[in-house]
Formats: sequence, C-alpha cells, structure tokens
Amino acid sequence: MVFKALLQAVNMIPTINYNTQLELVELIDQTRLPLEKSILRCTHEDEIVQAIKTMQIRGAPAIGVAAAYGVFLGLQRFNGSEKTFSAFWPGLVDMLASTRPTAVNLFWALDRMRQTVETILHTQGKFIERLAMARQGALKEAQAIQNEDIAMCRAIGRYGAEFLKDGQTWITHCNAGALATAGYGTALGVFRAAQEQGKKFRVFVDETRPLLQGSRLTAWELREENIDATLICDNVAGSLMANGKIQAVVVGADRITAHGYVANKIGTYPLAVLASFHNIPFYVAAPASTFDLKLTLGRRIAIEERDPGEVRSFGARPTAPFDMPVFNPAFDVTPPELVSAIFTNVGVLKPPFSASIREKMARIPTQAAFTARKA
Amino acid sequence: MVFKALLQAVNMIPTINYNTQLELVELIDQTRLPLEKSILRCTHEDEIVQAIKTMQIRGAPAIGVAAAYGVFLGLQRFNGSEKTFSAFWPGLVDMLASTRPTAVNLFWALDRMRQTVETILHTQGKFIERLAMARQGALKEAQAIQNEDIAMCRAIGRYGAEFLKDGQTWITHCNAGALATAGYGTALGVFRAAQEQGKKFRVFVDETRPLLQGSRLTAWELREENIDATLICDNVAGSLMANGKIQAVVVGADRITAHGYVANKIGTYPLAVLASFHNIPFYVAAPASTFDLKLTLGRRIAIEERDPGEVRSFGARPTAPFDMPVFNPAFDVTPPELVSAIFTNVGVLKPPFSASIREKMARIPTQAAFTARKA
Repeated sequence: MVFKALLQAVNMIPTINYNTQLELVELIDQTRLPLEKSILRCTHEDEIVQAIKTMQIRGAPAIGVAAAYGVFLGLQRFNGSEKTFSAFWPGLVDMLASTRPTAVNLFWALDRMRQTVETILHTQGKFIERLAMARQGALKEAQAIQNEDIAMCRAIGRYGAEFLKDGQTWITHCNAGALATAGYGTALGVFRAAQEQGKKFRVFVDETRPLLQGSRLTAWELREENIDATLICDNVAGSLMANGKIQAVVVGADRITAHGYVANKIGTYPLAVLASFHNIPFYVAAPASTFDLKLTLGRRIAIEERDPGEVRSFGARPTAPFDMPVFNPAFDVTPPELVSAIFTNVGVLKPPFSASIREKMARIPTQAAFTARKA
Repeated sequence: MVFKALLQAVNMIPTINYNTQLELVELIDQTRLPLEKSILRCTHEDEIVQAIKTMQIRGAPAIGVAAAYGVFLGLQRFNGSEKTFSAFWPGLVDMLASTRPTAVNLFWALDRMRQTVETILHTQGKFIERLAMARQGALKEAQAIQNEDIAMCRAIGRYGAEFLKDGQTWITHCNAGALATAGYGTALGVFRAAQEQGKKFRVFVDETRPLLQGSRLTAWELREENIDATLICDNVAGSLMANGKIQAVVVGADRITAHGYVANKIGTYPLAVLASFHNIPFYVAAPASTFDLKLTLGRRIAIEERDPGEVRSFGARPTAPFDMPVFNPAFDVTPPELVSAIFTNVGVLKPPFSASIREKMARIPTQAAFTARKA
C-alpha cells in the first residue's frame, strides 16, 4: 500500500536530517505527499533555498531546521580565502533569510547559526583551521536545533493534551504536525500525546486551501497514527460549530508577538472568530522559537503573498479564467482576544498574553539571545 | 480566445432553454466551465435528472427551470393510455423531485407544472386530446417559469443595487449568477444592475470549495461583464474584513424559511458570522420561489451531503489518503439574526423577517399557491 510504504519512509528518516554517511541533507518533498514518496537530497545551500520557497519543506519549525542546515551546506562548500569569506558569509545568511517572510523560526535559527559560526571564526589561528571548526560547529548547532525542536514538540503535546478531554471532538487547520517540525508536531503533537495517554477523541481536519496541507499532510499523518480523523472543506467548520459538534480548535503558529498576536496559515483567523462566536476554546500550539518578542502588534508582521497560480489552477488544470486577478495571502493574524491559551514547550500561556509571554519567555536563554532579524 | 467564444455561446443560448426547432432542451454544461464550451442537449427526462444530480446544471432557480422542462420532456415522450399515465405521472414528478433535497425552487416549479398539467387533464374529452393540450400547457408553463425567473432577477438586481454605494467593495460566495438562474442572476444581478447604473465598485469572489463555483463560474461571469473582480480562497474573507477592505456581503439562497433562516452553499454561514463580527452588512438575494413558507426553523431544512470524492480528489488527481473519511455537506443554514436584508423581486425585506416575509410574500399569488412538497 502506497501510504504504508510512505509511512515507513517517513519513519526511516525525519522530516529533515543530515545524512552523515552520504554527507548531504535529506528532506521529504512535501509537495509530492500524500501520493508519492520522494526524498530530496541537497548538497548545496541553493537547493535548500529552493526547497523552502517552493514549500517542498514547510511549517515554521521545519523551515528553521532547514535553514540551519543550509548554513552548514554553504560553509561546507566554501573553499576560498578569509577575504572572500567576508563577502560570502552575509550573502549566505541573507539568501536563506529571504526565502519566506512570515515564520520567525527561520530568522531565529539563522541567528543561532550565525552566532555559533561567528564566535568560532573570531578566535585565534589559521583561517583554514577556524573554518574547519566553524563547519563542525555549524553541523552540531543545526543538529541541536533539530533535536531541541522534537523535544519542544513533545513538551507542547504533553501540556496541550491536558486540555483534551475523553470523548471530545477538536478541529485543526493546515499542518502543524511532524512534517511541519523536525518531528512529532505542535498542534498534532497534542493529538499524538493524547493518543499515547489512551484518550478517545475525534479530529476534524480543514483541507486548508489553496495548497491543501490539511488533506495532503495532516489527514495522512493522523490516519497513520490511527487517530479518528475526518476531512472537511475549510468552509464546513462554521456549521459544525453551530451544530455543537466541536469542543475546541488547535492550530500551530508561524509567529507570535510579545502581545500574543498569532500569525498562522490563512484561514486561522476566521476559525478563531467562529470559535469565539460559538464559545469554543481556541488554542495555539508553538515552541519558544515561534515567539518574536521584538514585535507587539500583529499588523507589524510581514504577510507573504504567494503566486496567483496556486488559486487559478490545480496542478496543470485551470480552475478560473487564466487572467483572473487573485489575492493569495499565505497567512493571517489572529488577535490575542480570540486566543484561549497557547501551548508552549515551557508551559501553557493564558491571557493576558503580554504578561504571560513576558514571564515565561524571559526564562528561555536561547530565546532571549536570538530574535528576528527582519520585522 | 476561449472565454470570448464561450461568452458568445452563453449569449447565444440562455443557461437552459427549449429549442423549438430541434425540439429538445439545451443547457450549458457547467461542470466544464470555464474552459470548455459544451451544450448538453436533452430529449429525455432522465437526462435532466442526471444533469441536476451531477450539477451540470446547478443554482436553485436554474434547477427549478430544468425540472419544469423535465416534466415537459416526460409528457412529450409518453405515448401510453390514460391508465398507464396514472402510474407514469407521479413517478415522473417524484423522480425529478428526488434529484437534490435542499433548494426549494425545484419543488415549487414541480408543483406549478403538476397543477398546470393536472388541471388540463381533468377537463372533458378524449385522453389523447387532453394529453396533447397538457403537453402544450407544460411547455408554456416551463417557458413562463424561465421568463419569470429572468424578470425576477432583474427586479432583485434593481432593489439590491440601491444598497451598493460608489467606491465600495463587496464579497460574494458561490455562483448566484446568470448561470444559477434562467439568466442575469440574483446576487450577481445586484452587481449587473449597479454596473448598468454606472457605479464603480469592486467584488471579491470566494472560490467556493469543493466544486469551485466561485472561481469557475462567478469569476468568469464578472470578468465577462468587465466588473472589477478578484478571486480569493474562501478562508481569505476574514482577514480582508479585519483589514477594513469589505463593505458588504451578498449571496444567493437555496431556501429561505418563513422566519428568515437561509440555506445556501456551504461557507455562507461562516461568512455571515464574520460579517456580523466585523459589523459589515450581510445581504441575501433571492426570488419569491426560494421562500418555503411551510418551514419556520432552519434545522428543518434537509441538507444534502455529497460524495467524499469531491474533497478527496481533484478531477482524477487524489489530494488526500484514498480512504480518508470526509464530511461534505453542500449547504449550511444562516439564522435571521445574521442577515441584514433580503433583496427579492417584490422588494427589500428587513428584520424582523418573520413579519416582513409574511407581509411581502403573502401578496405573491404564485407563491401562495405553490409550496414545497418535501420538508
């Protein structure tokens, strides 16, 4: 069975990983899921850039891990002098930073990588030796970001699962799963943890237009975990709530400001409004790396607009007049007053979020050190 | 250009029509739009049944017209005795009534046809002569339903256009256009009338998952009318409203109860909740034939559930695990408290709707006579 084979492939390697034997970065090509098992193998940072831009790898935490490996691949490939390095290095980081504008984990991971590499390079010794150490340090740091992300997801899942009561039905949007992270997932981590605890529950999965991360990725992940999941079009959530079928919503996040504004996949905000209208709790699940404490208001978050072709056609098949104007934002912003709680790796944040975020996030040293470059 | 050619085809024949020269019913196959010009020619009532079920013809008023012509085709084809007719006749009407459960215009049109035919058949004379007269009467009645529908749409458009101010941006869902009616459209009739009045305005078009009537049909209709229209995924409406870009919503309806509950394409209800949350007026545009005065509450309206394949795949291309459970309701119900006004052919209805509907609809003799068979 094709899905079984794919599951084995996914279990075989994580969403993204450095293959030390082959000396290359392997990632699951998510544009081919759920039907085709396809592992992308990257030896050049440009391939990582392309993979992020085309969403072969997507999901805020996974993008951060990919960019970190992109830095390592760039260093690995570089064989010039110290002088040429000083031009190469900022260009490498900037190129990786310019792939997608909204998720903050990307900038957070790049800042970690830059600090690691620059600290090593600023020591004494021959450039060639420092560069070799920087390569080693960069690989170690990228692997650390990857492993920490899985640990953070497991913690998020444990905290969130306490809110999921036996017999409930929750709804989720987009894919905040193992595929959106280094593994386990944020929003889907809550379901994985609840399943591990033996709870019985049901999930409705928004298909998530236009790129169908819900039907292609989340549906497939939940099905493979034997979680009771039903796929719906995004516009079905409203009547399900009106008919009393939904007890909570949980979504991931691409960036959360210091005041609790949540940027996430387009369609998150209307889901939050619907939840509020029907008095249903609306939860966000995200690791510390998703918080951008330099920003307060949601309107300061850069919202990526993607190609009209994503809406005007389906694969090669046109679905609208070929020259039809399209507005295709990839994200929206949910204000803190519509959020009931945020499940993080350091605990559950509750309103007022400006206070709870300040309190919990200040305790995270990595978070304090690395903040978004681009606001 | 393919769209220009198609426009000419549409102008050449209406959404549905009886071709008196060829003695057959012609309708535009809407499943092939916007890319393929395809006229379906029906000589047998079974072809009409199939066309409605597969949504080759869709839209509440257009379904009513199609069913009326289906009755005529059945009569035209029947060549048995009076005795065999008494078994044939109720079966014909029931078969046409069983095509789709939610839109009430179908039952309304069938009741008109039945009353017309039965009145003629209950006169004196030879059966063969009465049958010939019934055929003539049925054709005339079906044509009357068709022509009245266009006149009703024009009236709706005039009433609704008074609410559309110069410079505004409105949003619409699904296709309540010329293609959903005998011509001109209900919600899109408002835009056509405003355009005729020389108003400048802009329309955002929900693509309308799963069958994309917005991107396939509405986008195409508005583009051909040179109305400034932009296509969006259904989940973009929320952030557009939050950013102050939308001044009103207008949608069609498949059934409106005596108390003002509005059944319409899935996604209408969440749009109404969003409009209410952002203090934006939410308008419904529908002819008298859409009102079902036998029902009061929305939960009494039968909601059609359609095939999971509409969500699990796109054409032949799978978009989800092949055995993924899917919930695929075709309609939802918007309660009267979320509706700002209903544009009808007899004027604008305002809250409280139970009073305004009773007052305006009681004056329509055709409406008083013909009500839904199936509740």
